[in-house]
Amino acid sequence: MKKNILIAHGGGPTPVINASLAGVISRAKSSDRVEKIYTAAFGVEGLLQENIIDVSDINSDDISRLKNTPSSAIGSCRYKVGEKDYEKIKKVFEEYGIDVFFYNGGNDSMDTCLILSNLLDNTQIIGIPKTIDNDLAVIDHSPGYGSAAKFAAMAVKELGLDLRALPIHVSIIELMGRNTGWITAASLLARQDKDDAPHLVYLPEDPFIEEEFLEQVQKAYKHYGGVVVAVSEGLKDEAGNNIVKPKHATDMDGFNHPLPGNISQHLSELVTGRLGIRSRSEKPGLLGRSSLTINSMTDRKEAYDVGNYAMELALKDMTGVMAGFKRLGNNPYTIEMCPIGLSEVANVEKIFPKEWIHSKKEFDSAFYEYVQPLIGDDIPNAFRLSLPQLMRS
Amino acid sequence: MKKNILIAHGGGPTPVINASLAGVISRAKSSDRVEKIYTAAFGVEGLLQENIIDVSDINSDDISRLKNTPSSAIGSCRYKVGEKDYEKIKKVFEEYGIDVFFYNGGNDSMDTCLILSNLLDNTQIIGIPKTIDNDLAVIDHSPGYGSAAKFAAMAVKELGLDLRALPIHVSIIELMGRNTGWITAASLLARQDKDDAPHLVYLPEDPFIEEEFLEQVQKAYKHYGGVVVAVSEGLKDEAGNNIVKPKHATDMDGFNHPLPGNISQHLSELVTGRLGIRSRSEKPGLLGRSSLTINSMTDRKEAYDVGNYAMELALKDMTGVMAGFKRLGNNPYTIEMCPIGLSEVANVEKIFPKEWIHSKKEFDSAFYEYVQPLIGDDIPNAFRLSLPQLMRS
Repeated sequence: MKKNILIAHGGGPTPVINASLAGVISRAKSSDRVEKIYTAAFGVEGLLQENIIDVSDINSDDISRLKNTPSSAIGSCRYKVGEKDYEKIKKVFEEYGIDVFFYNGGNDSMDTCLILSNLLDNTQIIGIPKTIDNDLAVIDHSPGYGSAAKFAAMAVKELGLDLRALPIHVSIIELMGRNTGWITAASLLARQDKDDAPHLVYLPEDPFIEEEFLEQVQKAYKHYGGVVVAVSEGLKDEAGNNIVKPKHATDMDGFNHPLPGNISQHLSELVTGRLGIRSRSEKPGLLGRSSLTINSMTDRKEAYDVGNYAMELALKDMTGVMAGFKRLGNNPYTIEMCPIGLSEVANVEKIFPKEWIHSKKEFDSAFYEYVQPLIGDDIPNAFRLSLPQLMRS
Repeated sequence: MKKNILIAHGGGPTPVINASLAGVISRAKSSDRVEKIYTAAFGVEGLLQENIIDVSDINSDDISRLKNTPSSAIGSCRYKVGEKDYEKIKKVFEEYGIDVFFYNGGNDSMDTCLILSNLLDNTQIIGIPKTIDNDLAVIDHSPGYGSAAKFAAMAVKELGLDLRALPIHVSIIELMGRNTGWITAASLLARQDKDDAPHLVYLPEDPFIEEEFLEQVQKAYKHYGGVVVAVSEGLKDEAGNNIVKPKHATDMDGFNHPLPGNISQHLSELVTGRLGIRSRSEKPGLLGRSSLTINSMTDRKEAYDVGNYAMELALKDMTGVMAGFKRLGNNPYTIEMCPIGLSEVANVEKIFPKEWIHSKKEFDSAFYEYVQPLIGDDIPNAFRLSLPQLMRS
């Protein structure tokens, strides 16, 4: 019997989530065991509204363009599936005769997959991993992370070039990652010389202590003049609370997680107010997950491949799994696809290893070995002249 | 008699200021009438400290790399030359036998040029235009602007892609431009369909009225769900004051101009607090003037050419002028180089024509005709599927 498949996206878009979609569709179209290819517009929220698009006839040119377009072409949502939704979901799946449901997302979406997997007896449920935050458990890394990591490194490099030319302030750049510092840590790849930006790096895994921060910034400013500080949006204090509290009740996402406040602006004001040093904040924000020009070709290829592999798992009649992969080695960098039980990944968060953080400036070489292959090409070196240092008045 | 030349940069770096430097050096090296090529590290501030680098021996490969590197390879400064500095400047110029001084910068730097031009009898003073803000008078546009304009359009396009996929909030993106809206207006080039981002655009030339803003945002949110609002960092109220006041006495630049506060964060909090609509702010900030991946090839070529032309003016023994250009036409786009008297441009600000602003959404076609050739290539179109609209709960 031929299968009807349905694909939906959950959570924040990434530069390569469409590549996974293209991977599923491409493999589905090359199989004689797939009948209809549906996508839900705007994730499970759209699914509940029967917002179903039939993409069975998409041609190979459009699949290729889809593969190379950032953000989600079919929309996404932040919606927590609850008991109230079960009947409606069953009804929609029956109406369209859905044999396989693919849900592409992060921790929260894998939780949704697990719920649906327990709920529906006649539908295969297959998760596809995605999150720029890289906090999905069990798999070596998440599709989307390599591109976001490259963006972080490029942004900090650009900022470093600017500050090197006009070394008159402390620039605090806020990078994404509510609970984990994977993206912010990748900014370390910006350095081409040891004195290059980032001069200080703060991750949420390492409790933020205000006085220590001010001391470190002052010291760096004395030394470099122009200082680039890379911080994760979700910096936390020793009690594990966000440094900047949400201001409004609406500052929560659909899963009732508090949205972090504007940490870069907060720290910048602290530097100016407490140290009397000129400071400004930069917050590329969502640009870091939707860049048209900065993304990792390795990441894009892997995202496509994992979509392909998810469809393979479907053709093998598997269910209750996420398409995953493990790293086999770095010389050369190789990964191997494998299925992972949904209960192993749902709601489990992979944090940045604390033993890799040697100081606010130096990280373990193991991290560089981990992240370097994921960003694809190297970060380009900038041309520079050696400059005599300016004396401060 | 052979000439010794000295080149310095003033004000904020741009993605193409090094291209102008490469242009001067390249032309100087091809002339048999130039002896020594010096640069001052960190602008006139470095010059006062005799921070002089001899680049006479730079090879053509490095000139080519210099041309393609964003930010200033020789550093820059924000320093107002005063009477106290005159003797020291004369001394340095005599010591190095400087026959021609090139100063590359914006309004403030052209003012410095004018001062030096009146001060020094035996040195030719030639200005080279540069500012991402595009507020230099007389010339058609400033080198640096085309690249910053392209960055603004790309950033808003990327944000629009993200919001289209997850239309759950109002995103306020802050773009550079303290007093003029040229960069922010260029974000209009992001649209590939009429309903695309930016959905609202606010320039400093058009007084900001809070109640009007809130009304417009609410209306756009009802219509689009996901809303991208592009705002200039220097938005002003009807009395001409910055909407967000500097918090600290150090929030001033070297010319005692107040640095604008964090307008995007301010407006985002206003939207959430007053309208109860989820909102976030993005502030790529300095990345918009130092991007390694987004810049206009037209801008880079023109920046190089104007550097070349500045050296031509020097070889013609001219002084007290800025190398400029005027636009001859758009079909095809052509410009012509010309010298402009320093007193015509020093401290004069070219603001965005108010008659081009039809509404917060629609601008005059004359602006598109003006800006389109400056960004070089077109902004790429993103692949998209037509999506049924999500109903709001």
